[in-house]
Amino acid sequence: MSDNRYEPRKEDKFSFGIWTVGWQGVDVFGPATRPPMPADRAVYKLAELGAYGVNFHDNDVFPFDAKAADRDKLVGAFRKALTDTGLVVTTATTNLFSHPIFKDGTFTANDRDVRRFALRKVMDNLDLAAELRASVYVCWGGREGAETGAAKDVRTALDRYKEAFDILSDYVLQRGYDLRFAIEPKPNEPRGDIFLPTIGHALAFIEELEHPELVGLNPEIGHEEMAGLNYVHGLAQALWQKKLFHIDLNGQNGPRFDQDLRFGAGNARGAFWVVDLLDTSDYAGPIHFDFKPPRTEDDQGVWVSAAANMRNWLILREKVRAFRADPEAREALKAARVDQLAIPTLGEDETWHAIRNFSPDIDALAKRGTAFERLDQLALEHLYGIR
Amino acid sequence: MSDNRYEPRKEDKFSFGIWTVGWQGVDVFGPATRPPMPADRAVYKLAELGAYGVNFHDNDVFPFDAKAADRDKLVGAFRKALTDTGLVVTTATTNLFSHPIFKDGTFTANDRDVRRFALRKVMDNLDLAAELRASVYVCWGGREGAETGAAKDVRTALDRYKEAFDILSDYVLQRGYDLRFAIEPKPNEPRGDIFLPTIGHALAFIEELEHPELVGLNPEIGHEEMAGLNYVHGLAQALWQKKLFHIDLNGQNGPRFDQDLRFGAGNARGAFWVVDLLDTSDYAGPIHFDFKPPRTEDDQGVWVSAAANMRNWLILREKVRAFRADPEAREALKAARVDQLAIPTLGEDETWHAIRNFSPDIDALAKRGTAFERLDQLALEHLYGIR
Amino acid sequence: MSDNRYEPRKEDKFSFGIWTVGWQGVDVFGPATRPPMPADRAVYKLAELGAYGVNFHDNDVFPFDAKAADRDKLVGAFRKALTDTGLVVTTATTNLFSHPIFKDGTFTANDRDVRRFALRKVMDNLDLAAELRASVYVCWGGREGAETGAAKDVRTALDRYKEAFDILSDYVLQRGYDLRFAIEPKPNEPRGDIFLPTIGHALAFIEELEHPELVGLNPEIGHEEMAGLNYVHGLAQALWQKKLFHIDLNGQNGPRFDQDLRFGAGNARGAFWVVDLLDTSDYAGPIHFDFKPPRTEDDQGVWVSAAANMRNWLILREKVRAFRADPEAREALKAARVDQLAIPTLGEDETWHAIRNFSPDIDALAKRGTAFERLDQLALEHLYGIR
Amino acid sequence: MSDNRYEPRKEDKFSFGIWTVGWQGVDVFGPATRPPMPADRAVYKLAELGAYGVNFHDNDVFPFDAKAADRDKLVGAFRKALTDTGLVVTTATTNLFSHPIFKDGTFTANDRDVRRFALRKVMDNLDLAAELRASVYVCWGGREGAETGAAKDVRTALDRYKEAFDILSDYVLQRGYDLRFAIEPKPNEPRGDIFLPTIGHALAFIEELEHPELVGLNPEIGHEEMAGLNYVHGLAQALWQKKLFHIDLNGQNGPRFDQDLRFGAGNARGAFWVVDLLDTSDYAGPIHFDFKPPRTEDDQGVWVSAAANMRNWLILREKVRAFRADPEAREALKAARVDQLAIPTLGEDETWHAIRNFSPDIDALAKRGTAFERLDQLALEHLYGIR
Repeated sequence: MSDNRYEPRKEDKFSFGIWTVGWQGVDVFGPATRPPMPADRAVYKLAELGAYGVNFHDNDVFPFDAKAADRDKLVGAFRKALTDTGLVVTTATTNLFSHPIFKDGTFTANDRDVRRFALRKVMDNLDLAAELRASVYVCWGGREGAETGAAKDVRTALDRYKEAFDILSDYVLQRGYDLRFAIEPKPNEPRGDIFLPTIGHALAFIEELEHPELVGLNPEIGHEEMAGLNYVHGLAQALWQKKLFHIDLNGQNGPRFDQDLRFGAGNARGAFWVVDLLDTSDYAGPIHFDFKPPRTEDDQGVWVSAAANMRNWLILREKVRAFRADPEAREALKAARVDQLAIPTLGEDETWHAIRNFSPDIDALAKRGTAFERLDQLALEHLYGIR
Repeated sequence: MSDNRYEPRKEDKFSFGIWTVGWQGVDVFGPATRPPMPADRAVYKLAELGAYGVNFHDNDVFPFDAKAADRDKLVGAFRKALTDTGLVVTTATTNLFSHPIFKDGTFTANDRDVRRFALRKVMDNLDLAAELRASVYVCWGGREGAETGAAKDVRTALDRYKEAFDILSDYVLQRGYDLRFAIEPKPNEPRGDIFLPTIGHALAFIEELEHPELVGLNPEIGHEEMAGLNYVHGLAQALWQKKLFHIDLNGQNGPRFDQDLRFGAGNARGAFWVVDLLDTSDYAGPIHFDFKPPRTEDDQGVWVSAAANMRNWLILREKVRAFRADPEAREALKAARVDQLAIPTLGEDETWHAIRNFSPDIDALAKRGTAFERLDQLALEHLYGIR
Repeated sequence: MSDNRYEPRKEDKFSFGIWTVGWQGVDVFGPATRPPMPADRAVYKLAELGAYGVNFHDNDVFPFDAKAADRDKLVGAFRKALTDTGLVVTTATTNLFSHPIFKDGTFTANDRDVRRFALRKVMDNLDLAAELRASVYVCWGGREGAETGAAKDVRTALDRYKEAFDILSDYVLQRGYDLRFAIEPKPNEPRGDIFLPTIGHALAFIEELEHPELVGLNPEIGHEEMAGLNYVHGLAQALWQKKLFHIDLNGQNGPRFDQDLRFGAGNARGAFWVVDLLDTSDYAGPIHFDFKPPRTEDDQGVWVSAAANMRNWLILREKVRAFRADPEAREALKAARVDQLAIPTLGEDETWHAIRNFSPDIDALAKRGTAFERLDQLALEHLYGIR
Repeated sequence: MSDNRYEPRKEDKFSFGIWTVGWQGVDVFGPATRPPMPADRAVYKLAELGAYGVNFHDNDVFPFDAKAADRDKLVGAFRKALTDTGLVVTTATTNLFSHPIFKDGTFTANDRDVRRFALRKVMDNLDLAAELRASVYVCWGGREGAETGAAKDVRTALDRYKEAFDILSDYVLQRGYDLRFAIEPKPNEPRGDIFLPTIGHALAFIEELEHPELVGLNPEIGHEEMAGLNYVHGLAQALWQKKLFHIDLNGQNGPRFDQDLRFGAGNARGAFWVVDLLDTSDYAGPIHFDFKPPRTEDDQGVWVSAAANMRNWLILREKVRAFRADPEAREALKAARVDQLAIPTLGEDETWHAIRNFSPDIDALAKRGTAFERLDQLALEHLYGIR
């Protein structure tokens, strides 16, 4: 794996969650297979591999119940690692899912005290995030949800969810933090059904907030694919609605448990189009990986897995650019009338009157093929690297 | 099936698509098993069964290529049946998916002429819808989508999708029609991936339109469940965002082809909560069924199947009301702190300052059970009818 | 919940895995929410609730690395609880999925030492199982599988899988134990894909063993439904092939993570047909529940949840018997020609010659409806409890 | 697409169903978008593209209700095309799913006359198959199944299913035909649930037949992936049980309607492993494609799509061979101990006694990583074509 073309550079803006390489392999059926990884070690190693930045939960750096002195010491070590390596904190987030107190959620927990405490925990970490100059604050509400229709009036739950974002927006504004929130949707797991299950639901929710301008999305490949949805379509809608604040890249094999495979593993064709879309968009944030090195791997495997995320991005970026530059592909795109979709349906001076009695040659239109198969095959051959 | 309690009445506002009972059983693997059903016959039969209203596609009433005289004759028969029976046209819609001309979609077809013609076809039927006093106009974009990432820039497709709704909104406003649009999301089938795949995506999209007030949703049980999503959660979000303009009730057994089972068949527990939500909401539209009598049934089976939709609604309505009235359930809801979710997280005069250092008894909160299992079991026993 | 009709009796043969009520709530995203439960406490409590028997993993009773004295003490307490309560050990099994040593599987681990050790661990617990008079030994190979096509030649893995069962069969035979094995299939989780993913794959595998008569199935509702398969169809095939040695009842909401809901929760209509099939079959084993009380519940909730499994079985048993006894249902079954399926296609003295030129009235047969909708609605109304 | 390396040759043994290129695009939501294609035209065109053989349904060649003279004429044209082109009939099958008479199935239809007629229809086409020297006879029971648990006693349905294969085996043996049957499993669509839903269920079923040696499998990629199952795992089990008689290659995007995408489209990583497995197995049958050119394509698109199936096979074959020959991959396979899985768990002279007290160094084994990520990444890079 030594080709220079695929070596990460700072300008590629690759970033990782501290918890990704730090995952110890605990699952429902077994305990840790790897020792804990201090946040500072993760930073040094990720820097070596060519990363540009990191994202962290509060409890990636210090335990839930850390005393002030311990917390400061651990944050200090983290900060030192950042300084030593030049790694940027692009993003921060709060662990609102591990502690038993959050077993019924946080912003939408039935228990009001839990809700109040959860907000306080977020505020604590917003201070640290601001101090470390994160610009995006990810909110994954993995425990917001239900297993039964009786446990929640979902309308009321959404009221509370909105209230939480309104409160946190006030906090950020009044503190003068340069931070925006990014909601990360997920359909299920660990809850039977999670609120704001897809990109769409989260986008819609944001419109109801007091400060919609402060809130956007952090869509994850695996989470959409767990619902059998086309991630690229969702991503494109988030971009279209100017709400792509951050991104979580990884891999998944369709509806099943959350696999968090490295980017490139899983749906290979989907990954090709993800890179194509981001590479032709105005998204300027980090290229962030939220994966889990499989439980079968040891420490060495963790870093092989981590490095492969970046490498796969670079390989795919080369491919999508080759596809877009390929004269045959350009011709095929034209033959498929893809360019024609960019022409508004009404001419500049037209209103509905212009088409009120529009009568094209129906038979001719009906017979016309779309030539999509040829186009798709060309793209596939770029994925295969044979063009 | 003779119990009076479960006999449909006009005030139940049950309605059906003409195409539901009219489905002839054509699928990918076989042709029709039932003869065509004229729209007027559907109306008379549905009225007999106790329905209140109908929804129709233009081509449920007359063929795509009907000449003016034939069209008028068929519309006349349809209208006469409505008058004779007193059935209301609650809703109308356009068939934008059958004719080969629409094979790559309509509002988002790459071919501009197809887009222009599709809009004209909708305007034609909006005139009829207004004339027949429909108040909601359903838009199911079943052919809007793609099988390959190359065929569409989804952002551009959304531009065209928005343009279509903006044009149609202008049309409706300028014509003075008292009609609102209801988008019906679906994740896939017949296209590999359909645009606006879920309730969430459609809700989000509406915010970008010129006349968002004119556009809402028509969410279908089966369509959300094809993506493994909790339909009730989506429905509640649509209600929360005041966008539930219409509803499509039916049945589905999870991610697979679109089954369109009768309401009650499929996810029985989900159906219970659907009725519970609608019955406690301010939704005042028709209780609309969009099902397909299985291809195995003859004409008699079609009507048995149709009637069972309404009957199951009434049975479930009785059950959810019994659940809500049951003192044991009320007590269990309280024990599960469901009522507490309705209490804002901040007190009336509080701001974030009030909870900035909120320190509850973490251990006590962590140990507290939610008592959701007891609550869910109580609801299940109401479904079983043993309470 | 005080109706006598639904109180479990010994003759109902209800049993539970010790690990079910003992699950502490650890998942990928969070640690335990409940304290450990000693096996003997589980036994006393299950007896109180009306259970008849239990199933246990070795490490439900004593830790993986227990010293001999501790092991004996814990086994002693377990045994005493069994004696005190009269609960039967119907089934035993080995924990081959928790310890990190098993992270790549056991019988099919690439590492030969792991395979050898795993077999030894099973033999250890077979001794205990025999001593405690279990008659069935469940084998769930949750870690047998792969995340990548490169990691395993599946044909070779099946050679090893077969070898393991052949060795264990020898062991059981030579020791003279009255024990049969029951394979529990699962499609995925914790491995990306698990070997022998469904009832069918396991049934087929058994035919290749040295002692197929010693090996049968333990099919779990949730595991089949995670693959979107109809559990009742699979169960019926297992019965048809005389391989239903044991059963795992619980609940699931379609393809997603393994929910292990209590029986009755999840797919309610499916549960109805499960009880119907078992109640009309010659299955004589325990009615075994393999569920997990949700992580949100405290100790009290655990027992509410456990009791509800049995109660739901009894409620459903009453319903399916009522359905089968209902004269209207009998008539509807006949109208749907369900009885005709039991008549062989060839008459007693017929061979293929008799039908070589069989020419029925095609049109008449094509027009005939199946009357399945009426029949299904009758069954549904028995589920609803309104008949 | 002009590279010689990827041009199909006769020895590649590529074959197609006549119905694949002949699919007119009818689906549940719309009628044909392409004109009918006579079987002989399909043969000439497939030969031009480089195919070696074809598979056909009786009603691909002549209509269900063809009179003898028309049938003979159409069969004659088909035969002439075969002779002219040298294309081989590798396989034949019966259309048992289109005609309304088969709406409740054929071998398991409740209606006995339907069962008898279905068997006769198969015998008719077995004669033609034998005459045209097909060696495999595919049986896809797409209408064998149910939407409700009441409609079928599945055990009885399996009795009838077995009876059908026993009768047909007798027929083939007594006629002296050199034909074997290949069952094609599918989980659902067009029926709500289909009997013998997966490779596993079909393999298990075969063991119960009178002539298991005459019956094997025809597993289809898309059908297994509709259940979220790993197709390669199923394929390997079919090979392991010596039952891979034929194969259906195509593409699918996970659980949803049956997409029948061209091979290579859909799950790209899965396709890589499919080719790897078949290329290293003793499977000697045709490389058969069962796909549907999307409804959006015209005639030209149909052939582009057809050709791409073969091309993708050849591209992937080159890649998997490169992967297996790559010294780095070989070393990585060794590091992952993949070779060790081929070493029996017991030594040649060992019995269970040898491992009864086997005590390895647990800690050392637990710490060992599997190095699967490195291996998987190497394979992925071969798919990408950058090695």
